[in-house]
Amino acid sequence: MTYCVAMRVDEGLVFLSDTRTNAGVDHVSAARKMAVFEQPGDRVLVLLAAGNLALTQAVMQLLSEPAPEDKLTLYNAPSMADAARLVGEAVREVHRRDAATLAEFSVDFNCSFILGGQIRGANTRLFMIYSAGNFVEASLVSPYFQIGESKYGKPIIDRVITPSTPLDEVAKCALVSMDSTLRSNLSVGLPLDLLVYEKDSLQVTRFSTLDHDNQYFQMIHRTWGERLRQIFGEIPNPTWADPANVPLRARETVSSVPRVVHGDALTQPDTSAPPFQTLMQPDTGRSQQ
Amino acid sequence: MTYCVAMRVDEGLVFLSDTRTNAGVDHVSAARKMAVFEQPGDRVLVLLAAGNLALTQAVMQLLSEPAPEDKLTLYNAPSMADAARLVGEAVREVHRRDAATLAEFSVDFNCSFILGGQIRGANTRLFMIYSAGNFVEASLVSPYFQIGESKYGKPIIDRVITPSTPLDEVAKCALVSMDSTLRSNLSVGLPLDLLVYEKDSLQVTRFSTLDHDNQYFQMIHRTWGERLRQIFGEIPNPTWADPANVPLRARETVSSVPRVVHGDALTQPDTSAPPFQTLMQPDTGRSQQ
Repeated sequence: MTYCVAMRVDEGLVFLSDTRTNAGVDHVSAARKMAVFEQPGDRVLVLLAAGNLALTQAVMQLLSEPAPEDKLTLYNAPSMADAARLVGEAVREVHRRDAATLAEFSVDFNCSFILGGQIRGANTRLFMIYSAGNFVEASLVSPYFQIGESKYGKPIIDRVITPSTPLDEVAKCALVSMDSTLRSNLSVGLPLDLLVYEKDSLQVTRFSTLDHDNQYFQMIHRTWGERLRQIFGEIPNPTWADPANVPLRARETVSSVPRVVHGDALTQPDTSAPPFQTLMQPDTGRSQQ
Repeated sequence: MTYCVAMRVDEGLVFLSDTRTNAGVDHVSAARKMAVFEQPGDRVLVLLAAGNLALTQAVMQLLSEPAPEDKLTLYNAPSMADAARLVGEAVREVHRRDAATLAEFSVDFNCSFILGGQIRGANTRLFMIYSAGNFVEASLVSPYFQIGESKYGKPIIDRVITPSTPLDEVAKCALVSMDSTLRSNLSVGLPLDLLVYEKDSLQVTRFSTLDHDNQYFQMIHRTWGERLRQIFGEIPNPTWADPANVPLRARETVSSVPRVVHGDALTQPDTSAPPFQTLMQPDTGRSQQ
């Protein structure tokens, strides 16, 4: 598995990828899932990859092969959209070559990519390319893409990232998101590749490989867990009361424990059942007592 | 989709389920996914269901049908393990009846259950039953089960629940976990059924159906998001420095931006590339400058 995330905000782009690969739990290794196509002063394109490693490396190989001057490559594509199309075409080329054979071995054609960057004279852009070679672009309402094991790390991104979030805060968010993923999925692992692209710099200005020794990531890992437990502890526990003491509006939906009455799978209110307590509603003054 | 979670701690059991069902985004409805088999003074068994609603209701129907006195049911099973076996047998019965026909329509035989509760004279127990009818039991090291859309809500449970967590705090954790899931997956929806079982009570003592009006859940929803953003803001942003100013240990893994050199897909250090900054490591005294 893999976790890669890229976010696009007003100040630039942030890319973060793990490096774990596995073919079963006893065949764990590491590979970099980030590739940087850079022409300082002209363009920085960053490609993140998830899926079958043989497939993603085959796509990467195609994208980096020498080409005649007149052929489009990631180094001369006039726009980010053209670059995304090139990645999609490379995926389709690998599909033509490998998919049938893989199917004989019941191996899915499984790969996906995030491509982001900036080409001189244009804005930063961010794309996600699917295994069918088609692609979508990130927008202001959803300024990020994830590939691989995305769910554990999604809630924090949804809560904190907006287009105006400062770039370093976006990097921090990516690392918190990665920390949640690392904690819950063994197939995502250190070291991490973090690239922070400052808009209009047109070269790589901030990059770091974070391993177990990295003190900033250690600090995030430790602090985030501690503070989560702290704020969890500060939220009041529920309190319980007899339904009769609960405000009317709440009581309406309160009384039906979904008891199964023998012989009738449709659960129904059972007035002969013993009394129980229900969640106390804080008194806000608008409820009737 | 569905999200159901059940946790077993020293003080008892907590069950929480959503009620959304859907067959495509334009066919959204609600069904209760919790069923309570209660004989006050003798047993409380709670069953949570996820998967194809027709299948889970068929299983529920089998489990609630009248049976001859000498036949095992959830109402007379001598142990929770026997009860789990009964649920598994019901799943297999529905599989025998429906699976072949469903396969003709390319519908997966997809259902899973959580069964928890207590029978007089024994401890509380908690099981997860798979669509093959086999089952596993929760243990002290992993005192909870989730079915349905489980990933968004898993990190908070992993961080705060231990066997000694007080029951009301477990209920609060289940609701926070549900809140994260509701925020990220549209196919999980209110109202929620929350049942808190106090060990040795042998009857339902605390139950609540939480809908949009429920002020406790509203408070969790609002407070949790606010406090998350607050602690996120309090964690320091990364700071960046020239690699030459970064302590030696960090520098070792710092210098290799995974640049793709044209014609060579294997990324390699490019000493001619422009300089970039890397994550500053806080000085802990053990690094060499």
